[in-house]
Amino acid sequence: MKYHPKLLLIALAGIAAFILGGDFSALADEDAYSSEEYVATAEYATFAVNNLWICIAAALVFIMHLGFATLESGLTQSKNCVNILFKNVWIISVGMLMYAFWGFNAMYPGDFNGIFAVGSWFGGDLNDAALTTAEYNAGYTWWGDFIFQAMFAATGATIVSGAVAERVKLPAFMIFAVLLVGFAYPITGSWKWGGGWLDQMGFYDFAGSSVVHAFGGFAALACVLLLGPRKGKYTKTGIRPILGHSMPLATIGVFLLFLGWFGFNGGSALSADPKAVSYVFATTALAAGAGAVASIMVSFIMLKKPDLSMALNGILAGLVGITAGADTVGEGSAIIIGLIAGALVVFAIMFFDRIKIDDPVGAISVHGVCGIWGTIAVGIFSFNSEHSLGIQILGTLAIGAFAFLFSFIVFGALKMIMGIRVSEEEEVEGLDVGEHGVPAYSEIHG
Amino acid sequence: MKYHPKLLLIALAGIAAFILGGDFSALADEDAYSSEEYVATAEYATFAVNNLWICIAAALVFIMHLGFATLESGLTQSKNCVNILFKNVWIISVGMLMYAFWGFNAMYPGDFNGIFAVGSWFGGDLNDAALTTAEYNAGYTWWGDFIFQAMFAATGATIVSGAVAERVKLPAFMIFAVLLVGFAYPITGSWKWGGGWLDQMGFYDFAGSSVVHAFGGFAALACVLLLGPRKGKYTKTGIRPILGHSMPLATIGVFLLFLGWFGFNGGSALSADPKAVSYVFATTALAAGAGAVASIMVSFIMLKKPDLSMALNGILAGLVGITAGADTVGEGSAIIIGLIAGALVVFAIMFFDRIKIDDPVGAISVHGVCGIWGTIAVGIFSFNSEHSLGIQILGTLAIGAFAFLFSFIVFGALKMIMGIRVSEEEEVEGLDVGEHGVPAYSEIHG
Amino acid sequence: MKYHPKLLLIALAGIAAFILGGDFSALADEDAYSSEEYVATAEYATFAVNNLWICIAAALVFIMHLGFATLESGLTQSKNCVNILFKNVWIISVGMLMYAFWGFNAMYPGDFNGIFAVGSWFGGDLNDAALTTAEYNAGYTWWGDFIFQAMFAATGATIVSGAVAERVKLPAFMIFAVLLVGFAYPITGSWKWGGGWLDQMGFYDFAGSSVVHAFGGFAALACVLLLGPRKGKYTKTGIRPILGHSMPLATIGVFLLFLGWFGFNGGSALSADPKAVSYVFATTALAAGAGAVASIMVSFIMLKKPDLSMALNGILAGLVGITAGADTVGEGSAIIIGLIAGALVVFAIMFFDRIKIDDPVGAISVHGVCGIWGTIAVGIFSFNSEHSLGIQILGTLAIGAFAFLFSFIVFGALKMIMGIRVSEEEEVEGLDVGEHGVPAYSEIHG
Repeated sequence: MKYHPKLLLIALAGIAAFILGGDFSALADEDAYSSEEYVATAEYATFAVNNLWICIAAALVFIMHLGFATLESGLTQSKNCVNILFKNVWIISVGMLMYAFWGFNAMYPGDFNGIFAVGSWFGGDLNDAALTTAEYNAGYTWWGDFIFQAMFAATGATIVSGAVAERVKLPAFMIFAVLLVGFAYPITGSWKWGGGWLDQMGFYDFAGSSVVHAFGGFAALACVLLLGPRKGKYTKTGIRPILGHSMPLATIGVFLLFLGWFGFNGGSALSADPKAVSYVFATTALAAGAGAVASIMVSFIMLKKPDLSMALNGILAGLVGITAGADTVGEGSAIIIGLIAGALVVFAIMFFDRIKIDDPVGAISVHGVCGIWGTIAVGIFSFNSEHSLGIQILGTLAIGAFAFLFSFIVFGALKMIMGIRVSEEEEVEGLDVGEHGVPAYSEIHG
Repeated sequence: MKYHPKLLLIALAGIAAFILGGDFSALADEDAYSSEEYVATAEYATFAVNNLWICIAAALVFIMHLGFATLESGLTQSKNCVNILFKNVWIISVGMLMYAFWGFNAMYPGDFNGIFAVGSWFGGDLNDAALTTAEYNAGYTWWGDFIFQAMFAATGATIVSGAVAERVKLPAFMIFAVLLVGFAYPITGSWKWGGGWLDQMGFYDFAGSSVVHAFGGFAALACVLLLGPRKGKYTKTGIRPILGHSMPLATIGVFLLFLGWFGFNGGSALSADPKAVSYVFATTALAAGAGAVASIMVSFIMLKKPDLSMALNGILAGLVGITAGADTVGEGSAIIIGLIAGALVVFAIMFFDRIKIDDPVGAISVHGVCGIWGTIAVGIFSFNSEHSLGIQILGTLAIGAFAFLFSFIVFGALKMIMGIRVSEEEEVEGLDVGEHGVPAYSEIHG
Repeated sequence: MKYHPKLLLIALAGIAAFILGGDFSALADEDAYSSEEYVATAEYATFAVNNLWICIAAALVFIMHLGFATLESGLTQSKNCVNILFKNVWIISVGMLMYAFWGFNAMYPGDFNGIFAVGSWFGGDLNDAALTTAEYNAGYTWWGDFIFQAMFAATGATIVSGAVAERVKLPAFMIFAVLLVGFAYPITGSWKWGGGWLDQMGFYDFAGSSVVHAFGGFAALACVLLLGPRKGKYTKTGIRPILGHSMPLATIGVFLLFLGWFGFNGGSALSADPKAVSYVFATTALAAGAGAVASIMVSFIMLKKPDLSMALNGILAGLVGITAGADTVGEGSAIIIGLIAGALVVFAIMFFDRIKIDDPVGAISVHGVCGIWGTIAVGIFSFNSEHSLGIQILGTLAIGAFAFLFSFIVFGALKMIMGIRVSEEEEVEGLDVGEHGVPAYSEIHG
């Protein structure tokens, strides 16, 4: 890799943002522990269990990043494995920092124009009871809120990471990820979860079928269109499958994502409310199981074999599908939503392959297509009569369109400025040795 | 694989069960969140922390399924790895669905004849305070109860999965797993945890040394007897060891199982009672450590080398051993139970190998033999004077015998109807390419 | 391996300690559950959520042992992989037992001379309200306290395990690990967390930058000095890099360590206090992210490539760095601490390599150097004006020096008595086949 000056540019920009970002000098005599008086109140125990669950849920969502890293590297070739792992380390690390410096306050700005808010350094005053007690929110402190949302934020870019695998130029992707997590995600996020225009219209997206998954899926679609398919994937004689190099790694990835989803959806109850958390656990798990069963059946009929990668994508499809409505549809409806998502993902993967949109891990199908499906499903299955099918469709398309356009423009600009694709030789040789100088696996004896 | 019509049969049966299973139309205007009045009650905080722990424990038990998937694939040959992973995806997915449609209500039927209850769709009314507050149970809501127990249910079939690895025919196993999880497990489960005849006799099994582990181990024994050993394992010149293809994968599996066991045993306190949960964490961890130390010592004496797979099985042996009595034996007793389990598992694995019962992952020894040991140990070490050694022996044998008989009959019937073993060619070639059409590992360059 | 008599000696010593260790006979009619009266008290809910968090945090710290096992085996050669996994199974298993028999009471002895306390069997009386209610501690029961601290204890030896990898003799390491976890760790631990002399001087180490990490890092340094570098690492023509055999395994390790750190630091709040836990989650995660970003930048400038293993070590460096002050520095300070740690670890790794101290996984740099940095950083960034830079420096050096000296003497004695290094042939052949008789990976077809 020879992008030294450009990478340093990122570094400098980061440091500048850092310095401008806020007041780092901690106030004297702050105290990170609740006062004895507060601990003795009646509300304290409930506040403690709520906030604890949000923190644990954040840790569960964190582990989804390992899930993505292993799933994406398992489903691709071993020669590009270090590259994928590196991208995932970068995304979670820089993603949390960007969310601290800009994203959190941009996504939850309080009063704003409903479309776009200016971000800022998130740091709060530990002595301010309005940030550290149920006065802030019944379910979490300021920092509990931040860490849970920060773990969500990085997910968007992680979804893209899989779709562009095996041919994307590392520095271009690193810059793109910073911009996508740091600036684009908080905008569409604010539309719904920050109280913006979609929220005011009554749009519903419980845990982010659209805000996170369709967002990531459509960003991925834009990037893949700009990038083109991997060499040798679509030949004159047809589609040549490029097998993943390690199915155990891919399976570990999907199970970890499933585990993390208990935090992703369960934590989106925004408290430890026993009714809500347990109900969401049940609908989430059943939709995931139904997704796997459906994709196993459908892929068996279509491909005449029990396909593990389709089964794995079926689990994810069910999870993405239930995410928008996990607290507002019946248990039977959750199963139906999962079954449809599991079937849909098989057809979507085959469809994108047929139109030569090369997505090595099926991210556009899993997150984009099933994200839309899950959002629309709220309009069909919700037991809350205020949810409207039309507004659900509008909302998911608006979010998907913004993610697509932002990505198309920004990744397109990067294409012109610095290039987004590695050379043909490097793609053949593999990105691990080409960009990182080391293979993922090595056997040195002696 | 050429079982298209038979697999479709499963699908159709599933869909029929689905339609007949219950009322899927969610009631209008249900609300998944607790009422403000309930949140303001004194009991709410305690109920919230209890239910939260049961939900988190369910997530921990869930991750045991990844533990089983990685342990089983690590301890077998790489040519059968996709097959094992696929089976584990199937079991957890379809297992949760079967438990929703039949198992949960069959296992916890309330008043019944003590031996067998009819199951039904589990779906509950969100507006019914009797399901969503401490009125239902001090420790969890209806859905918390369901999700925790559903995660347990799939474990039985997962145990079998490892024992039959590397030669079982996929569709036969898929059908068997559905029937074992869906129908057999809730029957013996109801005997104890559903308030059936064993419970009424005073039988004690805290978290399932018998109800889950001996059940799975004896189901595995029946299947292995019907299936026969792997080709080339027992030769004229002696036992030929077939090495696992990835010890890191196996180690990941055992550590994840250990992690999950904190939920398996800790959650079986059925609340977040601080005394019970912390005590169970301590006994569980100490028994696991003792199991490993004992199996390391014993296998070193027997095999003259420090054997990693025995050390791993020693951890599991200690965990299975303490499961029946984790809340009712002293800390020192927990260590003794673990030490004995860790020694026992080494002898059991060697014994089964000697009598040519081929269990690639040692599941019969770990779960069957140590499950019995753990149950009996309650009769020896319990500090509750009501626990009786005789009844403990009776209970564990009854559950093991039922699991064995059910499996022998059902898997035997499948043997006659459709065959349970792959062809000799496929076994040599490997099930991954033979049944699934893809290898677990592939190196495509360019 | 031919150390039969010596290994049996360990066994006998263990059994003797076991028998002498305490009263194993559980008291009759103990009850592991809280009384109804206690459950009905106002304090119960708060106590339950606090204790639950400590137990869950213990489970999270437990999974760090899988993180270490996979990180260490991923960063070393495949021919030594079984050996590393075996060592990690041994450490966690025997470590918990040693902590039960001696360590816990030696580390938290109550009144003592401030320097050294005699340990004993930890077992407690379940009927004693002073162990099972908030009377013991507002944050946990006796057993919650034990299990959380036991998981910490084994970490010290695990850190050493990576540094001595690929050439250490197994029985010598097994004995050393027992002594380090069992006797050395509780001594320095008692200096701070047991209320000893460092604590009385005002030394601060929130979650163990010094007590755990610098301790482990300096023990590792002593062992590596006694052991010497791996064959062929430092040649006449320069440093020959010995690549890790599996970067996915190493990445899994670091993400699991990151996950576990939420329990390591978050649990060190010693309650579920919403303000403290959420604040610590935020500082911990931001420091980790900053560590990765800094090490990516610095290693790019130094090595001219985006280095995955440096990025991974950067995450760990940030985590180790923030551990001493996670609850007492500002969010911006946490980022600065992480950035410096991430830069420091790159230089430290290169420095140790230059002076021919061969540390295959960078453990001395990550845990030793960044452990010191994190402890000193409290003296610089703390918002508690009672924290003193001088005492922070004194404390971290005292702990590091003790760990170094203890290890140098004990491991040196083992070197004289039984040897600590495998033969040159075995090192070339690999420890897996040499010591354990099996390879980590095998491909047996048919």
